[in-house]
Order: sequence, then structure tokens, then C-alpha cells
Amino acid sequence: MNTNTPSLPLNRREFIRYSAQAAGTAFLLLNTVNAACASPEKVFTVQDVINLILKEGGLSALTNTVDTIKAGKPDQHVTGIVTTMFPTIAVIEETKKRGANFIIAHEPSFYNHTDAADWMANNSVQKKKLELLNKYGIAIWRFHDYCHALQPDAILYGVAKKANWLPYYQTGKTLVTIPQISLKALAQHLKASLDITTVRVIGNLEQSCKRLSLLPGAFGGRMQITTVESDQPDVLIVGEVSEWETAEYIRDRQAMGNNTSLIILGHCVSEEPGMEYVADWLQPKLHGIAVSHIPSGDPFAWI
Amino acid sequence: MNTNTPSLPLNRREFIRYSAQAAGTAFLLLNTVNAACASPEKVFTVQDVINLILKEGGLSALTNTVDTIKAGKPDQHVTGIVTTMFPTIAVIEETKKRGANFIIAHEPSFYNHTDAADWMANNSVQKKKLELLNKYGIAIWRFHDYCHALQPDAILYGVAKKANWLPYYQTGKTLVTIPQISLKALAQHLKASLDITTVRVIGNLEQSCKRLSLLPGAFGGRMQITTVESDQPDVLIVGEVSEWETAEYIRDRQAMGNNTSLIILGHCVSEEPGMEYVADWLQPKLHGIAVSHIPSGDPFAWI
Repeated sequence: MNTNTPSLPLNRREFIRYSAQAAGTAFLLLNTVNAACASPEKVFTVQDVINLILKEGGLSALTNTVDTIKAGKPDQHVTGIVTTMFPTIAVIEETKKRGANFIIAHEPSFYNHTDAADWMANNSVQKKKLELLNKYGIAIWRFHDYCHALQPDAILYGVAKKANWLPYYQTGKTLVTIPQISLKALAQHLKASLDITTVRVIGNLEQSCKRLSLLPGAFGGRMQITTVESDQPDVLIVGEVSEWETAEYIRDRQAMGNNTSLIILGHCVSEEPGMEYVADWLQPKLHGIAVSHIPSGDPFAWI
Repeated sequence: MNTNTPSLPLNRREFIRYSAQAAGTAFLLLNTVNAACASPEKVFTVQDVINLILKEGGLSALTNTVDTIKAGKPDQHVTGIVTTMFPTIAVIEETKKRGANFIIAHEPSFYNHTDAADWMANNSVQKKKLELLNKYGIAIWRFHDYCHALQPDAILYGVAKKANWLPYYQTGKTLVTIPQISLKALAQHLKASLDITTVRVIGNLEQSCKRLSLLPGAFGGRMQITTVESDQPDVLIVGEVSEWETAEYIRDRQAMGNNTSLIILGHCVSEEPGMEYVADWLQPKLHGIAVSHIPSGDPFAWI
């Protein structure tokens, strides 16, 4: 991720140039910081926050993206920010309670990937949700494509962090090699560290695992299957599958003697640590606006 | 479903005409039946069986369908038929044991809806599965689009039959109104009758249910959501969802005071009774060829 201070080692000439620039702009910077601290009325709009995230993340604007404003207006003044996976009714209510009015959500607001307006136009639930958002004056922006485009991918990084796997995680790689653990113990570790009630597993629970392909969320069968073919992991860990794709591929793969197992965490809980990490990443970049995370949580009971 | 005998009431003139035709063709028919019974060497090819299913089902040929031959050849002589949900390795092995060489499967053979050849061309599991099918001389035909096009939809009918809901099931309708039952008891009834280990539920387990929208399999978020909007059921019962679609729609719908609950059975086990019914439906139409069902079973363990 970009910061204003170069994070790579500087050679001597660069160091002198940077220091001179820094000295020359010190007064101005100091004044800016003071102004930000001394002016509680300093305001950010929704669009300002989006621009800041793109700038700080070193992200180029995408022309074809689902990361659009789903409710509220770009020029709306932000009173507080909440990150979450799904902007559920419970998350909206809690956002209101916290005095915040901007939800940055990783997933759709209206039950389909593109939040398509056509076939959902008369949907009763979407209508009521929009009415509630309007009543509370809460804006929603989806932070999905940009979120995965960060280096490191904020979701993967957040999950690796929460699972205590940062020493083994490498930016840009799905394969994480951890100390040897049984499939059963691995599933239990994921349940405990990511706060999950129940996971679905295909595999021998006594199997020894080291090589994990980590694909939280719902990357789709093609991505999941080709990742297994290239990573050759002991376990594929995902948020969600289409059962007729990855689950059947893993079942056949095992039946033909290959050990790759599958752990399905649940979509929401599998990526939640990423959006928690986004709050931690964003807060220091925004003076005077509270950024907090609200987990949307797994919706299921298991019977 | 079509039979040679008109099943609709006949007026008198039609009855006389039909009776005369029947008398005129009686000898010929008798001879045909005798020939079929007396000739154990009478052979059906894979294509013959497909043609018979389309004819007996009153189905018009589809130009754009996933129901194609996935392994084996159309002119292959059929020694026995197995119906199943997924032609897993275990199902292939059991088919071989039964002396059958034709699997009629509801779902894909190669882990994606269209059994696309391009990105799967070098897939290690697909390769080995095809080698095994070639070695055993087993053909696979997918019976999906045609299966749902039957009147009644063979999958829906089979599920309603297995759940003892035939008295309440109406051809062409997703809504089934049953005697009042709690959501918890309903989930338990489905587990027991459809032989399911664990189901996922969103809803109040004490809720009273009568109106069920029955959509086994994975009809997709759009179909599932629009069905709830039109049926206004107490419970939507599905095989599989994309969690960011139907699950979140149901979660928000409930949070806004509407009682519609969701039961997710698992894709495979939710449609299996349909393919079991297909075997029962097909057997009497094929003399001299055994048609049996092999359940492919749920692939998951729940931890």
C-alpha cells in the first residue's frame, strides 16, 4: 500500500532529495496537520473517502467494477464509517447507533453481484431497505474489486492475520505453507480463530496438512479448481462453493487417490477478517472520523 | 407424460375411432410386444434410450441444452442403466459392478455446468475420469433440462413423493401447502425422509409453516428470490444457494418483519429423489434392460 513516505530503501541521492523536500515542506505539513486537528468541522464527503482509499491503496480507477455507491450521495458529509461484509438490516441499525452514516461493504447490498436494478425493481425487501437507508441518511459503497486489488489483497491479508498465519503468508500467492497439522485440527483452528460455528469438510480428518490454498469468499469453480491444479495443496480453504463445481471436483480427486481436501468456511465469516483489517488500515488515514468494523455474521443455523 | 393411450377423456366419436384403430392394430401390437419379450438379444443403443425418454416424456428436442452425451458413444449398446445425481467415481465403480454401461446423470460430469472443454482441457481429474469411463466402456448422458421440462417436473415430483407430499403437490407449481408444522419439525421431516445428515436454516425454529416454496437443486438467486416474492411462502426449501443472493435476501426480509424462512438441503440430496423417480418411470418402458438408481450422496462432513 502507498504512503506519502517511500517505504523502500533509499539510495543516498534519493535520501538527500527526499530530506530536502521534507524540510522544505515541513512547515506546510505541520500547518496542515494542525489544521486537521484543530478543525473538528473539517469534512469528508463519501467521494472524498473513496478517493482517499484509492489514492492510499495505490489503486487505478476501474472502468468496469461493481464498486459503486449503492445508497446515499457522493457529496454527502461523512459522520462516521463502518466496514462490514454485508450491509444487513442489523448492520444498518448498528451503524445508525454509532452515529455513522457511511457503510463500506465488501459484498452486494441487494442480493445479486451487480445490484442489478431491472429484475429487482419491484422487490419488496430492496424497497424497504432503501427506504430505511434514506430515512437514516446512510450511504453504502461497495469495496470489493478494489479491495482484492490492493497489494496485499486486504481480504487475504486480514484472514491470514486473524488465523495467525502472517509469518507464512506471501503477497500475491494463494498458497500458504504452515507447520504440519491434521485436517481436523486445522478446521478447529479456523473455527476458533475466525469465530465460526460450523464448517463443511470433504476429506480424511486425520490427514496431515501443510500446504493450504487460501481462497476466502466465493471465487467460483473455475478459479478454485485451477488453483488446486496449480498449487497442488493438501487443503483448499474457501468461503463458498457451487456444489456441482468445486465440491464434486474434490470428491472425484480424492476418489482417484489424491489427498487434497476441502474446507468450506461460509462466505461471510471467511472474508470478515479482511473487512476488519480494512477498518484498521483506513482509520489512521482519516483524522476526525471514526472507522469501526461491524461483523455481519453467519446467517445460518445448522440442524 | 405421453403414453400410447390417450389419457384425456374422449368424446363418443373419438372413442369409436380410437377403438377401431386399436382393434385394427391389435395383432401388430401383440406381435411387437411378443417380439420384445421373446428376444433377449433385442438391443438399445444409448441414442435409442435418449430418444425413448424424449418420446415417452412428450419432450421436444432442445437446440440449446446441456443434456448431451458426456462419455461413450450414441451407438453404443446398452447393457444396463443407472440414474444418479452426479456420476462420481463411486457411482461409476458401482455401475460397473452392476453390469451396466450407461449412466443418466442429472448434473455435470466435469465440474462446470456446460462441461466446458476449454479451460478444463488439461484438468488432471477430468482426464483420469474419462480414462476410467473409457476403460469400463461406460457412457454418460446428462438429463437435466429435459428432466425439469417433464410434466410434472420429474425432480419436483420425486421430491414431493419422497417427502409424502404428493397429496399437496400440483404440477407446474412451486408452492406446496401442507398441514401446519413447526420449522424445526419440517427440517427434521426433510432430513428423515430425504436421508440428509445436516441442513442449514435461516429462521425461527418455532415458526409455524404451511406454505412451502419447493425449489430443490440450485435454481439461482434470481429464480429463488422472485419465487419468494410471488409465492409469499412460510419457507423456501432449496438445494443450494449463492450466499450473497438468497441467504442475504432472506436474512434482510426476516429483519424487516416478514417470516419467510429458508431451508438449504444440499444440492445433491435435494434432487436425488427425482433421479430415483426417473429410474422407476423409465424401467417399465425398457424391456430387457435393468434400470436402477445409485444415490451419489452428500459429499460433506460437518464440523
